[in-house]
Amino acid sequence: MSRYRLKIEYDGCRFCGWQRQEGAASVQQTIEEALKAFSGEVTTLHGAGRTDTGVHATGQVAHVDLVQSFSPYRVMSALNHFLRDQGVGIVAADLVDKNFHARFSATSRTYIYKILNRRTHSVIDQNRVWHVILPLNLDLMREGANYLVGHHDFASFRAIRCQAPSSIRTLDAFDLWQEDDYILARIQSKSFLHNQVRIMMGTLAEIGKKRWHPEIIKEMLQKKHRTAGGPTAPAHGLYLVQIDYPSPLVS
Amino acid sequence: MSRYRLKIEYDGCRFCGWQRQEGAASVQQTIEEALKAFSGEVTTLHGAGRTDTGVHATGQVAHVDLVQSFSPYRVMSALNHFLRDQGVGIVAADLVDKNFHARFSATSRTYIYKILNRRTHSVIDQNRVWHVILPLNLDLMREGANYLVGHHDFASFRAIRCQAPSSIRTLDAFDLWQEDDYILARIQSKSFLHNQVRIMMGTLAEIGKKRWHPEIIKEMLQKKHRTAGGPTAPAHGLYLVQIDYPSPLVS
Repeated sequence: MSRYRLKIEYDGCRFCGWQRQEGAASVQQTIEEALKAFSGEVTTLHGAGRTDTGVHATGQVAHVDLVQSFSPYRVMSALNHFLRDQGVGIVAADLVDKNFHARFSATSRTYIYKILNRRTHSVIDQNRVWHVILPLNLDLMREGANYLVGHHDFASFRAIRCQAPSSIRTLDAFDLWQEDDYILARIQSKSFLHNQVRIMMGTLAEIGKKRWHPEIIKEMLQKKHRTAGGPTAPAHGLYLVQIDYPSPLVS
Repeated sequence: MSRYRLKIEYDGCRFCGWQRQEGAASVQQTIEEALKAFSGEVTTLHGAGRTDTGVHATGQVAHVDLVQSFSPYRVMSALNHFLRDQGVGIVAADLVDKNFHARFSATSRTYIYKILNRRTHSVIDQNRVWHVILPLNLDLMREGANYLVGHHDFASFRAIRCQAPSSIRTLDAFDLWQEDDYILARIQSKSFLHNQVRIMMGTLAEIGKKRWHPEIIKEMLQKKHRTAGGPTAPAHGLYLVQIDYPSPLVS
């Protein structure tokens, strides 16, 4: 039995999300079917994080066990052959030891959120960015983001249906910058609550539009209830870009 | 009669190219129809450059005359209303004087070419980049590009069907750089020959793969015939990003 780690890219708009579910195409199921087509083995693919429908990934990570022994390169090539035109691709593959777990071994997760901030709808980046028409003030958004960085109870910034036992998280980084008409955010944490990045971005957008002061974030954190947080930004601006692991775990 | 200058973005894969042609949707015709739907006027839209099918634009420029007088903002908004979901948008509009001509007043045109250089097919950027599997050596490509910059006869780098009376052009800039798995090129000239950027990129890719030495460019320029140049890179990696005009022409 060999354990493989896969780095995965996908177009979130073509799937019901990462996780297998009845009557809809999930990323997990699509790759499991490609694994079966290639190896004949029925497997379970364990992802580092569950992304919702519409959320893209350029650096999702998952692991899978195969009874037969293949080179990681062969696994990647064969999967890409079966995945072609399905909106998902394997970007890297390697052999890892039996202690490696895509979800539980992860030490950090990084997301990018993309906003197109101009009057005209997005053409080249349709379904790849959140189109915000009203001008956003980047400095105010940064001020708001700074209140989010650190160790907090993010209860106001998680979906009502979030099932995590605790809503306390440590946000390691929340960087915002501008490129032409785009405002981009990079957010890093050991783990995130359900919809946390999207609710944080939706809230910062209201601040960027000058509807709210950046200090409102402090109050929201204190109130500890979803109704205190801002709106949820759309899924299709969000990208899971990187999962980090402690290096000794990877063979 | 008022003359409007429009800055236009489009997804080249959804059109037969810029220019109106029988039985296929062109960018020009699509916008002319939106102009008619909005103003009732039958107009001719004059573009700065004709792009082929598959070639994208984020900064195409065109001008149009309207009998009625509208604010430029109203022209842009109304056109975007009628263009929604058609793969094209008006990014900016302004009033220009009668001497302004989108094509003949242009002093410079800038293209970006995007290559995704990795084994795995593109998922997020499908139809937005040229996927090259073999590793490309950026330094060799830069060396080749440097031979192209300047005043040359580009006869080996233009389509057989190119109708320009002269194949002599001055290339002002050809910059190449890397971002993650992407190799990007920015190419600037007063004007370009038909397929010039794509043939130059296709040739540089062969150099990047170490199939040819960078010095081959010198020979190609000397031979002055299309058969001496390299292959034509695909249209869908190419973006028309900027057209420059002398500032006094724009009111």
